[in-house]
Amino acid sequence: MKNQDYKFVDRYEFDEELLKKAFAEAREIYKERGFQRKMGYGKAPAITTVDMAKAWMSEGHPFTCDKSEEVCANALKVLEAGRKAGVPIFHTTTGYLGDAKWDMGRWDEKIPMSALDINSEWMEIDPKLKPRPEEPVIHKKYASNFFGTDLANILNFWGVDTVIVMGATACACVRHTVMDSTGHGFKTIVPEGTIGDRVPGVIEWNLFDMDAKFCDVVPVEEVVKYLEGIDPSVYSKHERAMDK
Amino acid sequence: MKNQDYKFVDRYEFDEELLKKAFAEAREIYKERGFQRKMGYGKAPAITTVDMAKAWMSEGHPFTCDKSEEVCANALKVLEAGRKAGVPIFHTTTGYLGDAKWDMGRWDEKIPMSALDINSEWMEIDPKLKPRPEEPVIHKKYASNFFGTDLANILNFWGVDTVIVMGATACACVRHTVMDSTGHGFKTIVPEGTIGDRVPGVIEWNLFDMDAKFCDVVPVEEVVKYLEGIDPSVYSKHERAMDK
Amino acid sequence: MKNQDYKFVDRYEFDEELLKKAFAEAREIYKERGFQRKMGYGKAPAITTVDMAKAWMSEGHPFTCDKSEEVCANALKVLEAGRKAGVPIFHTTTGYLGDAKWDMGRWDEKIPMSALDINSEWMEIDPKLKPRPEEPVIHKKYASNFFGTDLANILNFWGVDTVIVMGATACACVRHTVMDSTGHGFKTIVPEGTIGDRVPGVIEWNLFDMDAKFCDVVPVEEVVKYLEGIDPSVYSKHERAMDK
Amino acid sequence: MKNQDYKFVDRYEFDEELLKKAFAEAREIYKERGFQRKMGYGKAPAITTVDMAKAWMSEGHPFTCDKSEEVCANALKVLEAGRKAGVPIFHTTTGYLGDAKWDMGRWDEKIPMSALDINSEWMEIDPKLKPRPEEPVIHKKYASNFFGTDLANILNFWGVDTVIVMGATACACVRHTVMDSTGHGFKTIVPEGTIGDRVPGVIEWNLFDMDAKFCDVVPVEEVVKYLEGIDPSVYSKHERAMDK
Repeated sequence: MKNQDYKFVDRYEFDEELLKKAFAEAREIYKERGFQRKMGYGKAPAITTVDMAKAWMSEGHPFTCDKSEEVCANALKVLEAGRKAGVPIFHTTTGYLGDAKWDMGRWDEKIPMSALDINSEWMEIDPKLKPRPEEPVIHKKYASNFFGTDLANILNFWGVDTVIVMGATACACVRHTVMDSTGHGFKTIVPEGTIGDRVPGVIEWNLFDMDAKFCDVVPVEEVVKYLEGIDPSVYSKHERAMDK
Repeated sequence: MKNQDYKFVDRYEFDEELLKKAFAEAREIYKERGFQRKMGYGKAPAITTVDMAKAWMSEGHPFTCDKSEEVCANALKVLEAGRKAGVPIFHTTTGYLGDAKWDMGRWDEKIPMSALDINSEWMEIDPKLKPRPEEPVIHKKYASNFFGTDLANILNFWGVDTVIVMGATACACVRHTVMDSTGHGFKTIVPEGTIGDRVPGVIEWNLFDMDAKFCDVVPVEEVVKYLEGIDPSVYSKHERAMDK
Repeated sequence: MKNQDYKFVDRYEFDEELLKKAFAEAREIYKERGFQRKMGYGKAPAITTVDMAKAWMSEGHPFTCDKSEEVCANALKVLEAGRKAGVPIFHTTTGYLGDAKWDMGRWDEKIPMSALDINSEWMEIDPKLKPRPEEPVIHKKYASNFFGTDLANILNFWGVDTVIVMGATACACVRHTVMDSTGHGFKTIVPEGTIGDRVPGVIEWNLFDMDAKFCDVVPVEEVVKYLEGIDPSVYSKHERAMDK
Repeated sequence: MKNQDYKFVDRYEFDEELLKKAFAEAREIYKERGFQRKMGYGKAPAITTVDMAKAWMSEGHPFTCDKSEEVCANALKVLEAGRKAGVPIFHTTTGYLGDAKWDMGRWDEKIPMSALDINSEWMEIDPKLKPRPEEPVIHKKYASNFFGTDLANILNFWGVDTVIVMGATACACVRHTVMDSTGHGFKTIVPEGTIGDRVPGVIEWNLFDMDAKFCDVVPVEEVVKYLEGIDPSVYSKHERAMDK
């Protein structure tokens, strides 16, 4: 299979409606036991995108995700609302160094991480997100945006209490990022329609699991409205001038 | 609902056969793109159980998992093979301190972590596993056995290259432990039938996701056979006597 | 040497005044280059004590520190001010499990960690600090209070922005805790006279290094006054009741 | 003071001989209590340099360290021996993004981190070390090479058991790297004469503290000889080709 053959898929043979039956039964059990609560929103959010680089968000790469046009369009609404309100934004991308890839770990034994060259243009944040120069692009080496990176420490310094997660893929990097985010102490929010993946049912199932136990999955419009109300004075001030 | 009402459920209304159709379609796509490889086994394994305390493995608690008799029976086969071979075993349990629970983080906003008192007998490793005194019980505060604990550092010191994960629940603590394990650099193995949870389809789906991207899901018998062949001299030796 | 021979030492042969000459010269260089600034105080502090268990704070153990009566008396002033103001307090102690000590890592190859049995009464927080039941005692396995523990995540959840560090020893566990604390994003404060160790000059030198680059070293009275002004409503509220 | 004024200093007014008196007295106490042991060497080393970029190793920057010609010359001996033996080498450098520096944390409140622009040529590994393309340069944000980076995970994957640390500065980034290294489970080695700093006595004192409790400080020649005997087959093999 050649790289140019990796296209977006519009629909799978699998009938995703069937999952809803499982979710309905599970919701009853979760409710009975006190799971699947709402975390709600804090006063100082940050936005983090997960692997929304070209390799995942455009066609032609083994890591291409389906419906990425739509995923990026939804994510852009959230990003633009955040940018207007002065909310800090941190992107990530994943890749390794040169041919030797001394910085690549165990994961390549399971999935084709060796296809990801950090200096390739495939690793750049997809232009559909209109990334800005002040928005850091973190070069992670594994799934979660927080794992083996400084992100939790920086958000802690900024006084962030809420993290909005968007990107790909549902069952790997997004799932791990969301799990870590709540573990680090943040309220965690996933806007619907901003998560990508590439096999049938996997987005629906992972959103269900995450909403049941790790984050609130909510409509994009609700997140946009929340961001519009943020007061940028809630963040820690940097005092960056040198003493002399 | 009273605690004594939390019983094991044998089957759900949801027809789990339907999931297999989704998995079959997904396997095709994964194969085409080079995902869902086999990690295989290393030469120095450790075993870690995830929340196999009474609250998860016995009836009568909001965290009770289904079919725990069977889950524990399978896990015991793996543990006993490891014990014979001198493989290090690390259990975990989750809970918080007293009424104030100052050591409890954000997770309680999503699921009822406040029901877990670290000094309750519910937090003890279930006797069905026949835990031994030399097997440490790590008091984790969040999902993954590795998150906010010293486990990765200790396994690294021991020279471990392979981690066998068993326990509960499939979509939360086991899933997070498995993701972290591969990220820390270990080959990661989940023996089938050793993972618990409590809603329909959730074990199957999470095993599928993990096998596709994060670990090898293999039969219990294969793991037992592997453990029987371990040479205990592969582990780092402790030199524990004081100098004087 | 028997354990009962490990006594507090009042003074060393080494003339500590000589260090002041080095520090004076260093201060000039640091000032010229913009180092050794003041971090100042935030609005939401936590207090963490480092290994203020009996093994370090009482006589008769290989880990006994000098002048521990005085160190504990000073630390108690800070703790009592924090308790009155509703400031969260987290103690740590260090030790390993039973004879096998499977949870002990590499450090024992350098210093006699095997002397620390987690179930010994030597590992209990020294009564001179008057510890309270709601103050968690974290069982760390290595130097820093943050390393391989959940402390950073819990403080982040609480909305803490400032960490006050006291305990032992200056050149090991306190030094590592202070370095990690600033790295995790906290303003870090060390009250003078609350840090213990057991060789000549080591407290002075480590306080100097830390004040130059990692934290503010300030008089106990200043910290007490700061704590008296804390408004307990700055911390995240726990909503601990189960849903049902 | 202009940047070009930041020169190497050959000697300080402070008489460093006086420190030796303190160290001699301390050594007695440490020996009596079983501290200051030798960790020795493992079979699978890695080398990591700490901030040996131009800002630290060349004249003309607020972070310039003294005697950097000599420090680099010694470090090069170790690096070249490692390169011949196939030992993996990981460099680090520290800096932040653009004018906004959203990725800079709390540390700037203590020392002038805002002077470090990650895209400046000052942040490049100093050519005196003859860095090679396959040697990753990790962009850390804080002191330790391990803190908020993937380094421990990658070394764990490689099967490394011993870490050789060289670089700057003695009391900050090297000290923190060494402490973390032993905590992650590695035998840790510092070759004498490969550590830089910029105030009187600080290298000597920090080497003494580290040798007492966290690593072995040994002559460069001993490390070179050790590296010459390494068998490169001890490292994990990468299988980097894609499946198809």
